[in-house]
Amino acid sequence: MSHAINSEMQSCINACNRCHQTCLHEAMTHCLESGGKHVAPDHMRLMLNCAEICQTSANFMLSNSSLSSQVCRVCAEVCDACAKSCEQVGDMDECINTCRECADSCHQMADTYIH
Amino acid sequence: MSHAINSEMQSCINACNRCHQTCLHEAMTHCLESGGKHVAPDHMRLMLNCAEICQTSANFMLSNSSLSSQVCRVCAEVCDACAKSCEQVGDMDECINTCRECADSCHQMADTYIH
Amino acid sequence: MSHAINSEMQSCINACNRCHQTCLHEAMTHCLESGGKHVAPDHMRLMLNCAEICQTSANFMLSNSSLSSQVCRVCAEVCDACAKSCEQVGDMDECINTCRECADSCHQMADTYIH
Amino acid sequence: MSHAINSEMQSCINACNRCHQTCLHEAMTHCLESGGKHVAPDHMRLMLNCAEICQTSANFMLSNSSLSSQVCRVCAEVCDACAKSCEQVGDMDECINTCRECADSCHQMADTYIH
Repeated sequence: MSHAINSEMQSCINACNRCHQTCLHEAMTHCLESGGKHVAPDHMRLMLNCAEICQTSANFMLSNSSLSSQVCRVCAEVCDACAKSCEQVGDMDECINTCRECADSCHQMADTYIH
Repeated sequence: MSHAINSEMQSCINACNRCHQTCLHEAMTHCLESGGKHVAPDHMRLMLNCAEICQTSANFMLSNSSLSSQVCRVCAEVCDACAKSCEQVGDMDECINTCRECADSCHQMADTYIH
Repeated sequence: MSHAINSEMQSCINACNRCHQTCLHEAMTHCLESGGKHVAPDHMRLMLNCAEICQTSANFMLSNSSLSSQVCRVCAEVCDACAKSCEQVGDMDECINTCRECADSCHQMADTYIH
Repeated sequence: MSHAINSEMQSCINACNRCHQTCLHEAMTHCLESGGKHVAPDHMRLMLNCAEICQTSANFMLSNSSLSSQVCRVCAEVCDACAKSCEQVGDMDECINTCRECADSCHQMADTYIH
């Protein structure tokens, strides 16, 4: 894009974007179609909350917000909680990996740009 | 607000907003906690799709978009489909009423501002 | 709604909702049409970032998320920054008041439900 | 992802996603920092409306919604309008291309899955 985003931030935007897509898609297809533990209220909430905060976090970075690091920090926390919930439910390996990668990237962003 | 929105549009924004809140809240609490037919994939998808398009529709009107009527038209269609799904599931009266009111208001907006 | 939200949380949802609507509407009408200081990059970013995090914060509470307080905390911080930016720009009184009310309500929520 | 999305839909999700990111980023950096015609109310509204409907359209497809084609149709219309606005403003080549690609992909999706 014409106003270059530095490579660390671009990589965090991509991680948030992947995590948003994976959590939303898995919740709305795999989890709903599997039923049982996959539709436990706390698990479904975390999946959809994680999708939403990843979207918000990416949008803050894309808009060059001076408050991105604070949103990245809470995004990392939600991703960590979602990864744990996926481990307990089982059969959610792709989601676990995507959440962990996003949590790592967001923690890094939050620590780099401390305000 | 300082740039006045006419009363018909304000009433449509309010209807979209109520419908967004009701569908999201009912899906994430009542439906997930009830289980059974309430978490059928097609029903949960419609509830959450409806919440999202209502939010988008309200945001278009709030931003004074020249394309609001087109978004209102598809919003009305999603609300109608969600109301029907709620009837089939049962025990979703509040959501049915809110979706129907929003569908009516959005149909009216779409017909008033034809581009 | 059928799954009652306690009155403190409902009041915070309402504050976030009002702040989302006011910031989005004022940015997209009053600020864009006034030009000058009203479209300074940092001011417009804060207005639109504030609208977005308020929407996310309301959505977390509506979905009964266990991580709402963390999102409320960052929402309060963004609202405070937006109120300050509005003071510097001038002619943004409604937005200042709405942002401050939302910041207060979100700070309270964040302190009440500490995880 | 584990529940495979067919390649045509995946390509439309990717186009919406690129268009969301480009419009949001360009509006919040290039347009705001350039000023002048770049911050004309109608142009900024179209840029941000386009970003939002692309996000919604991608989310409908990711959630396997039966109403995706209707949202894709309105998304195509908003992308076309945004591309035209970018042409009139000038110096918005990347955004023009991304909007046109997204409009094409969304028109195709809308025509393929007619309900």
